[in-house]
Amino acid sequence: MKDFREQAHRLADWIADYLENPERFPVLSQVRPGDITRALPAAAPERGEPFSEIFADFERVIVPGLTHWNHPGFFAYFAISASAPGILAEFLSAALNQQAMLWRTSPAATELEEVTLAWLRTLIGLPPGFDGVIYDTASISTLHALAAAREAAMPDVRGRGLAGRPDLGAARVYCSEHAHSSVDKAVILLGLGHDALARIAADAEFRMRPELLESAIAADRAAGRIPVAVVATVGSTSSTSVDPVQDIAAICARERIWLHVDAAYAGVAAMVPGYEWILRGAQAADSLVVNPHKWLFTPFDLSVLYCRRMDVLRQAFALTPEYLKTSEGDAGVRNLMDTGIQLGRRFRALKLWMILRHFGADGLRAALTEHMRLARTFAGWVDASERFERAAPVPFSVVCFRLRGAGDEQHARLLDAVNASGEVFLSHTRLDGRYTLRLAIGNLATRDTHVRRAWELLNAAAAAL
Amino acid sequence: MKDFREQAHRLADWIADYLENPERFPVLSQVRPGDITRALPAAAPERGEPFSEIFADFERVIVPGLTHWNHPGFFAYFAISASAPGILAEFLSAALNQQAMLWRTSPAATELEEVTLAWLRTLIGLPPGFDGVIYDTASISTLHALAAAREAAMPDVRGRGLAGRPDLGAARVYCSEHAHSSVDKAVILLGLGHDALARIAADAEFRMRPELLESAIAADRAAGRIPVAVVATVGSTSSTSVDPVQDIAAICARERIWLHVDAAYAGVAAMVPGYEWILRGAQAADSLVVNPHKWLFTPFDLSVLYCRRMDVLRQAFALTPEYLKTSEGDAGVRNLMDTGIQLGRRFRALKLWMILRHFGADGLRAALTEHMRLARTFAGWVDASERFERAAPVPFSVVCFRLRGAGDEQHARLLDAVNASGEVFLSHTRLDGRYTLRLAIGNLATRDTHVRRAWELLNAAAAAL
Repeated sequence: MKDFREQAHRLADWIADYLENPERFPVLSQVRPGDITRALPAAAPERGEPFSEIFADFERVIVPGLTHWNHPGFFAYFAISASAPGILAEFLSAALNQQAMLWRTSPAATELEEVTLAWLRTLIGLPPGFDGVIYDTASISTLHALAAAREAAMPDVRGRGLAGRPDLGAARVYCSEHAHSSVDKAVILLGLGHDALARIAADAEFRMRPELLESAIAADRAAGRIPVAVVATVGSTSSTSVDPVQDIAAICARERIWLHVDAAYAGVAAMVPGYEWILRGAQAADSLVVNPHKWLFTPFDLSVLYCRRMDVLRQAFALTPEYLKTSEGDAGVRNLMDTGIQLGRRFRALKLWMILRHFGADGLRAALTEHMRLARTFAGWVDASERFERAAPVPFSVVCFRLRGAGDEQHARLLDAVNASGEVFLSHTRLDGRYTLRLAIGNLATRDTHVRRAWELLNAAAAAL
Repeated sequence: MKDFREQAHRLADWIADYLENPERFPVLSQVRPGDITRALPAAAPERGEPFSEIFADFERVIVPGLTHWNHPGFFAYFAISASAPGILAEFLSAALNQQAMLWRTSPAATELEEVTLAWLRTLIGLPPGFDGVIYDTASISTLHALAAAREAAMPDVRGRGLAGRPDLGAARVYCSEHAHSSVDKAVILLGLGHDALARIAADAEFRMRPELLESAIAADRAAGRIPVAVVATVGSTSSTSVDPVQDIAAICARERIWLHVDAAYAGVAAMVPGYEWILRGAQAADSLVVNPHKWLFTPFDLSVLYCRRMDVLRQAFALTPEYLKTSEGDAGVRNLMDTGIQLGRRFRALKLWMILRHFGADGLRAALTEHMRLARTFAGWVDASERFERAAPVPFSVVCFRLRGAGDEQHARLLDAVNASGEVFLSHTRLDGRYTLRLAIGNLATRDTHVRRAWELLNAAAAAL
């Protein structure tokens, strides 16, 4: 491509403008299903086209179909940020096109991953016994954790599998009723079966009840089921509740069951003074997932699995065909392909390294603290309101609330009306069986004005119902 | 970051220079294990640092630790290219930070994925019955294919799993002895067990022998084993051999066994006139993986799974918690999270779309044709040489060869000597039990001069042994 330099400069300006004016597009895309498809030809062009034409179509067809996750009015799901150093790192990473499967195929990606994950581990207060590995998503991190747990709990699963074995009982994995759907998908994929997942009831603040976990384990053991793992959640998806990890860890230690902590969203908050308690007990976990792409300003994707028993993970997955053997393999270097199902791996550590250095520990703590302050501010308005009411505590940066006296249908209409504004985007969940609105803060550009505007739009829409 | 625009322009120039001078660094990194780690501090900085300092460290510490996959002398594994439009698309993708889990969270990413995969499907001659989905790697594509196959072959695995079920026999998955290690990892992860993988012997040209597949299936059925899937390979990793897909497909149809085709590397070659035969029979497959990040000039990662039974894949994985329910969900839009274990998904379709348009069908065919011509040229030198000999046919862009009369140790020394040059990087495999050198062509910047230089270095090193 002869004009790469020119086009790269053009994109540098386009992206700089985009980041400087994150509100110039509606946050929730306003296209209708099929709009994008209809605007594009049914076949690839026979002859190559100039990049300027491709980019013109990008602006004309693609941009209107984007939901802007970088918009400061993005309050849905977990709000995230593609921070500037992270975007620059991804630009470099794409150009370098590293495949960090073996040490020799990218010594820098291999060693920078180890260094950067040690930095992050220290920041969130996990002891050095935790070894880290980067995956793409929390779904994959949790899948690997549960695969290692399966290997530890059930004899010779790697070799003999689970089917056709009279020596094996059915498995059981435990999590809170508020645990993420990635746990469901993992037990399905691993062949344990969805029925193997026992969802333990939570208390009034949506935290797993350890005494119910304990009795479930006892009942399962009595019935010949094999307890494989317990998943404790630090920052559940619906309400960001924190399971009592310390109590759960004590049970897992006593029962010798693998403890996996899903701290994908909230784990990073442990670096904020006053929030160390959220990972209390996690030091005794076997594995823990935390996602820098959720609340650490890292462009998607980058999930980290910390594991105290990485040898079990390797035992489950290490497998070196001849074409991947290297002389360093014998010299004890770390080959990242040995801890995962994916052979090829992008150079993801680069963005985390650049982000940690750009913000510094201090800057990261300040950003997280500010997001939690904004959430408390919004929660205060809800609490003082006669129209709305709070639906859950606010330990971090997400507020769950309801329109007083409204049912599902009214809530859904309210949400649609607010989201149609293009100024803010909120999503919902269900708590105690009831439709619940969620306001999630996590974008670096979100200010008091945006949170205030969301509140105004909610009140206006509620008044108009 | 106040100076994002300035730094983005600086990177635009750095990357443009890098791509214009791909040979300014040694192709295989010359650092020693631990060099990168030792050059970096043990903890994250407390205060943020200017990007210019971070970038200075990138150049000082990270760059020497890179193995340059974009170097035209990269001939190891499968050589790849991060093409210019792909790099630009990734820059945009990082800034937009789309999460294409639901249609509404990125209508553009969702619909562009469908459009672009239809373009690619037509280019390689697969019928419209194949629906496509983008994953990160072929390991994950094949994992999903085999998960769907398991769901189809074994009753109610999603719900009841595999363990503790007297009604289920042990499983069996079949592939050639030359199939990729991702098949091994998938059967392990799925709980089928590594023993469940039957590696069928190949013929003299490294192609699976269908008659042996047939007898293996019969023997397994007689022994109460459940045949779950057959994996046929089009372009095996060691020698790029092509299994007789048509014969294998006939067996699978007769036996009602899921056929998955691993065309991760070579599948794209089906778009070149004269190479349509490589996917003959694949039209009857249940699923097929092809990796644009291997030989279609797409920055890593982007793997495509085509599947004729996407409903089975959805049946295995679809699961919508309340917090992900949308009004469009009821209106029949496609939510990409339903076909995968990963909930979050990057906007990968953007780069494939830009690449297909930038090169055009014609340009892609020309690039693939040129790579195959270069491989044939090199193979011709091997064939005419008294020092080296060919170890396998050359259907595509990889040449397998040996130093006549040399054993493992001599070959390994030869390879190390050549790779130490910094000018070229080759890897090895084992064929017929013997150490085999591989020269893989796949970088867009590779010219006759680079292939010629590899040949000179190989001959010089052989003479010096």
